[in-house]
Amino acid sequence: MGTNRLEAFSDGMMAIFITIMVLEFNVPEGSSAQSLLPLVPKVLSYVLSFIYVGIYWNNHHHLFHTVKHVSGAMLLANLHLLFWLSLIPFTTAWMGENHFAPLPMALYGAVLLMSASAWYLMQQTIIRKQGPQSALKKALGKDLKGKLSAVLYLVAIACAFLVPAVSGALYALVACIWLIPDRRFERLLQEGGQQD
Amino acid sequence: MGTNRLEAFSDGMMAIFITIMVLEFNVPEGSSAQSLLPLVPKVLSYVLSFIYVGIYWNNHHHLFHTVKHVSGAMLLANLHLLFWLSLIPFTTAWMGENHFAPLPMALYGAVLLMSASAWYLMQQTIIRKQGPQSALKKALGKDLKGKLSAVLYLVAIACAFLVPAVSGALYALVACIWLIPDRRFERLLQEGGQQD
Amino acid sequence: MGTNRLEAFSDGMMAIFITIMVLEFNVPEGSSAQSLLPLVPKVLSYVLSFIYVGIYWNNHHHLFHTVKHVSGAMLLANLHLLFWLSLIPFTTAWMGENHFAPLPMALYGAVLLMSASAWYLMQQTIIRKQGPQSALKKALGKDLKGKLSAVLYLVAIACAFLVPAVSGALYALVACIWLIPDRRFERLLQEGGQQD
Amino acid sequence: MGTNRLEAFSDGMMAIFITIMVLEFNVPEGSSAQSLLPLVPKVLSYVLSFIYVGIYWNNHHHLFHTVKHVSGAMLLANLHLLFWLSLIPFTTAWMGENHFAPLPMALYGAVLLMSASAWYLMQQTIIRKQGPQSALKKALGKDLKGKLSAVLYLVAIACAFLVPAVSGALYALVACIWLIPDRRFERLLQEGGQQD
Repeated sequence: MGTNRLEAFSDGMMAIFITIMVLEFNVPEGSSAQSLLPLVPKVLSYVLSFIYVGIYWNNHHHLFHTVKHVSGAMLLANLHLLFWLSLIPFTTAWMGENHFAPLPMALYGAVLLMSASAWYLMQQTIIRKQGPQSALKKALGKDLKGKLSAVLYLVAIACAFLVPAVSGALYALVACIWLIPDRRFERLLQEGGQQD
Repeated sequence: MGTNRLEAFSDGMMAIFITIMVLEFNVPEGSSAQSLLPLVPKVLSYVLSFIYVGIYWNNHHHLFHTVKHVSGAMLLANLHLLFWLSLIPFTTAWMGENHFAPLPMALYGAVLLMSASAWYLMQQTIIRKQGPQSALKKALGKDLKGKLSAVLYLVAIACAFLVPAVSGALYALVACIWLIPDRRFERLLQEGGQQD
Repeated sequence: MGTNRLEAFSDGMMAIFITIMVLEFNVPEGSSAQSLLPLVPKVLSYVLSFIYVGIYWNNHHHLFHTVKHVSGAMLLANLHLLFWLSLIPFTTAWMGENHFAPLPMALYGAVLLMSASAWYLMQQTIIRKQGPQSALKKALGKDLKGKLSAVLYLVAIACAFLVPAVSGALYALVACIWLIPDRRFERLLQEGGQQD
Repeated sequence: MGTNRLEAFSDGMMAIFITIMVLEFNVPEGSSAQSLLPLVPKVLSYVLSFIYVGIYWNNHHHLFHTVKHVSGAMLLANLHLLFWLSLIPFTTAWMGENHFAPLPMALYGAVLLMSASAWYLMQQTIIRKQGPQSALKKALGKDLKGKLSAVLYLVAIACAFLVPAVSGALYALVACIWLIPDRRFERLLQEGGQQD
């Protein structure tokens, strides 16, 4: 089985996750600049989550370029990832609605951490299937970005209860780390390395 | 006619069914842990329905790998299946909102039963088209999983009015039965058996 | 340019039109059978509209099988069709909410009539592009179904102000006419007639 | 990497942007013609935004026909474009809800201007990748339409605070400019000019 449908389904889901977040912008009653003010924290949360889902889509796109045949385990690992990503619109809205209060900030990070874990699990599922010569394993190397992100999420969740602003900064930092294009895959793909 | 568009349309629909359910998580006003409590039954219902729709997507993916040409009857059978699946977000929300009360529990099962019937109908439509040497028929064998699920749904619907908790356990049980990867199709596909 | 993206975009839109309608089923507060009663007219409207959008998707699927290259005019004609179809969820909800009152019934028909006109326009755009030997023109023949539907819509719109029930019956009748599989295209495609 | 997934993801997003706008049509309580009146400005806004998103989809379709290999920079440029387009449903709803009041009119134009800038950036990203013999650069020529649109958006934003009706007319004018089919791409594609 090819990767087409898995990719199409994931694309559809991620596209909807993003747009559902826009639905949380309640249209203000008035037409003054003041009436827009309550939207500011919501828009900030949206921007952050848009970037996160965008990065996941981007990386998903790269990841499945190293995969030729989809196994049943990969389908499940992918659904598991999509489950955690599907909670992002809710945590985004709750965080924006409560002006970055401690608990919503921590829950936002927890869902990001679970998404990252699901991503890691999916990578491992693919690597196990590809065997010792796995193109993906080679491309990932020590996966420093992945490990660093997990640590930063954990720190951010703890910080949420002390200084929520630091958590916010850490979430933004992780997003920046990933926005820097991931040369590992591009290099791999230029070497033509597509394998099972 | 190939299966591309039928698959793409079904993928889109199922992706939306899942994400519509997330919209039912009303963002709580407060930011305390207490304010999240009313969401617990909703999240539980969501997890169950996410797994169900995920399984349908998964099986749909496998099923149409045995199909090469789509007939008009298959298009209708597929739309019929999507109709019943489209009601899952509503029954999920009603069940979660009412803390697994009898009638919502029963209706949840009734929609699952109708979806399963629509699935059975679609299988038969494909088998009829493929003729006596149907690859799908061979793959399904006696379709024990399908028959068992139908019986369990019926029992669960009846139980809903007596002990709703048993219904819930039965719905979870059916989901587990299907989560165990279906070797029949994987075996078939490895034998290269794609036919009309 | 191929038809892939036009088809994918239209599939996505039509999938969303259907699922938006489900969002109109407000989850009832109680869990009794009575609390479901107000949903009955909404569900009936939904079933009718599901069938209509399903038929449009089905016919869209068939129609673009006769098309090889998409022109700019076809893209616009398709967007025009999607515009009218996009209003169906609104008219469906209004009709269901008001228990099939005269004006909502008439507006429902008006949007169906405009959709049918947009469909006709799109057919003509394709035929003009394909030239005198148009495979589509041959397949359509006198397009009796199309003409009959337009007349029935007009009658139903007029009836809505006198006997709304008759309008409802006529909308159901048109749906039935189209549900009967359209042999013209299947025949054409069996003759291998893809052109342009 | 091919353009398939980028196109599919963008199609999905744009399809959802359009349909989200329909969700803003609150179903009126009554069934009289009067009850539809408050919807008139909303429908007008919707028509305008439908045309804009439709044009973007259309042009996106044409643009990526000149692209063979997607680079990481193009993926980001595309996500950036989608971000601004994702705000259109909100500005459309705010404008319709407030009967084309000054600030909503200006914000509507600002989001269109940012979308146009993101589009320009994406074009430049593609041209840079394609190198001096860029097929896209040749097709665009002096990109008069693009430059004129940006100027008209700026004028419209300024006008919003003085005579909002003029802004509305200017937004409609820009839409008309783009609705006229863009011969440049069609000519290019007839010359078989796909490169990168």
